[in-house]
Amino acid sequence: MTDADAPRRFTHEATVRYAETDQMGVAHHANFLLYLEDARTGMLRAHGLPYGELERRGVGLPVRHVEIRYRTPAFYEDVLLVHVWIEKYRSASMTFRYQIEREDEGGGSTPIASATVELACVDLSSRRPQVFPSDLVEFLERHAGK
Amino acid sequence: MTDADAPRRFTHEATVRYAETDQMGVAHHANFLLYLEDARTGMLRAHGLPYGELERRGVGLPVRHVEIRYRTPAFYEDVLLVHVWIEKYRSASMTFRYQIEREDEGGGSTPIASATVELACVDLSSRRPQVFPSDLVEFLERHAGK
Amino acid sequence: MTDADAPRRFTHEATVRYAETDQMGVAHHANFLLYLEDARTGMLRAHGLPYGELERRGVGLPVRHVEIRYRTPAFYEDVLLVHVWIEKYRSASMTFRYQIEREDEGGGSTPIASATVELACVDLSSRRPQVFPSDLVEFLERHAGK
Amino acid sequence: MTDADAPRRFTHEATVRYAETDQMGVAHHANFLLYLEDARTGMLRAHGLPYGELERRGVGLPVRHVEIRYRTPAFYEDVLLVHVWIEKYRSASMTFRYQIEREDEGGGSTPIASATVELACVDLSSRRPQVFPSDLVEFLERHAGK
Repeated sequence: MTDADAPRRFTHEATVRYAETDQMGVAHHANFLLYLEDARTGMLRAHGLPYGELERRGVGLPVRHVEIRYRTPAFYEDVLLVHVWIEKYRSASMTFRYQIEREDEGGGSTPIASATVELACVDLSSRRPQVFPSDLVEFLERHAGK
Repeated sequence: MTDADAPRRFTHEATVRYAETDQMGVAHHANFLLYLEDARTGMLRAHGLPYGELERRGVGLPVRHVEIRYRTPAFYEDVLLVHVWIEKYRSASMTFRYQIEREDEGGGSTPIASATVELACVDLSSRRPQVFPSDLVEFLERHAGK
Repeated sequence: MTDADAPRRFTHEATVRYAETDQMGVAHHANFLLYLEDARTGMLRAHGLPYGELERRGVGLPVRHVEIRYRTPAFYEDVLLVHVWIEKYRSASMTFRYQIEREDEGGGSTPIASATVELACVDLSSRRPQVFPSDLVEFLERHAGK
Repeated sequence: MTDADAPRRFTHEATVRYAETDQMGVAHHANFLLYLEDARTGMLRAHGLPYGELERRGVGLPVRHVEIRYRTPAFYEDVLLVHVWIEKYRSASMTFRYQIEREDEGGGSTPIASATVELACVDLSSRRPQVFPSDLVEFLERHAGK
């Protein structure tokens, strides 16, 4: 990312729970999908669009595709920074991009994982695709850059 | 339990998933609540009352109370036998009792945990208590014994 | 609890994740065990005893018993206050007591659940019981009251 | 897949647990990673190589990359067929490919998701890459086709 992206991205802090570790002594890989979900819904909430409210209005954002690369294991009690931004979007789908890192004591950081998640927009009563409502379009325009 | 209870109990087989282990190298204690849930819904299904169907009829069975004692750790790939039966019931609540054990190679078994789970009966549209429908009453009468 | 207990208790904030909800539209009951775990390990960390560090010293605190009463459902994005304190302890076991509540907009609060969790102290290499190390005894004495 | 692939693939049956549903009324997307894990470890076990045994020998197979496309939602109590086979492998990494489907009552089936998972081979004591042991190489040769 360039500096120009910085204002458009959101950072969520995820602390690895004990229950999220596995017998290899690391955060089990499936839990990263929860960190990604928490980051993008945190981003929506920070924009004034809590996802729970969207669902109450009948708008659902189900996950259609996930791609994630695990670089370095994360450990119990690690505080992970989950950076998220909009990579692209169309009228009824959007793709979030993520970088997960762990801050080191010395001031640097270790890359933990990178990912993309594509969501569709559906009408919850019919589960059929629908175009994004106007406030979500505004969210996308603001965060996706020109 | 006595032999007289045997016909009234149901046994569910739970295999410990890798994702269910934690860094202590054992099945994390919270997952046992999933084994208990799978056992009692398996018992309902075996009786011809899949819990999903109850919900589609507007009947919910939320958990009100859990008490569980952990005796011996369970490990990855362990096959656990979860025995479940009805301990007691009233018009709108029921209590399941459980014994979880692991069969040993020599033919004996190791007690892993024991538990009770109390469920209420609610109307899903209002979330208010309601008495059990007649087919659930029949299930309770058959499994609880005199 | 009385006011005299207040200084000895610790409060952890748990936000209900989307992945923690179930099709009944509430936080699934098994996840409460994670909130309890996060609260007691948060309490240990606040006292300068991160649980991960205890394990690196070979000290494990496995769960032996859980008892939990669910009073009111918790929903997606709810911020729950998990109050925890030491109910009692012996040389190699301790019991945490919990109250979980949700703050209402009007300034009051709704009781969500209450629980106790008993932990043993074990030597991780042998999985055998051992007495608490001195810094854990100090933690217990400070938090358990006279 | 062609018929020629059929003998080389393994099919795992996954039943959607209640705890795996979310408030959208479907199996939460993160749980699919557990179905994939259960399928590939089931395949290893069927070949006489239980993954737990590999770990006891100091061989770990951590996940390096996941790519998953969700096509149709899965529901509570659905029985999913998770077909898995080896897509490719090198000396210290292998890629599993998956098709998840649900059998319909009429005899057909609905595609639920497709995925690939790449695993590395590591020495568990050092967490460093190592080449596959000979029995894993034999497993790969047998399942990956010519």
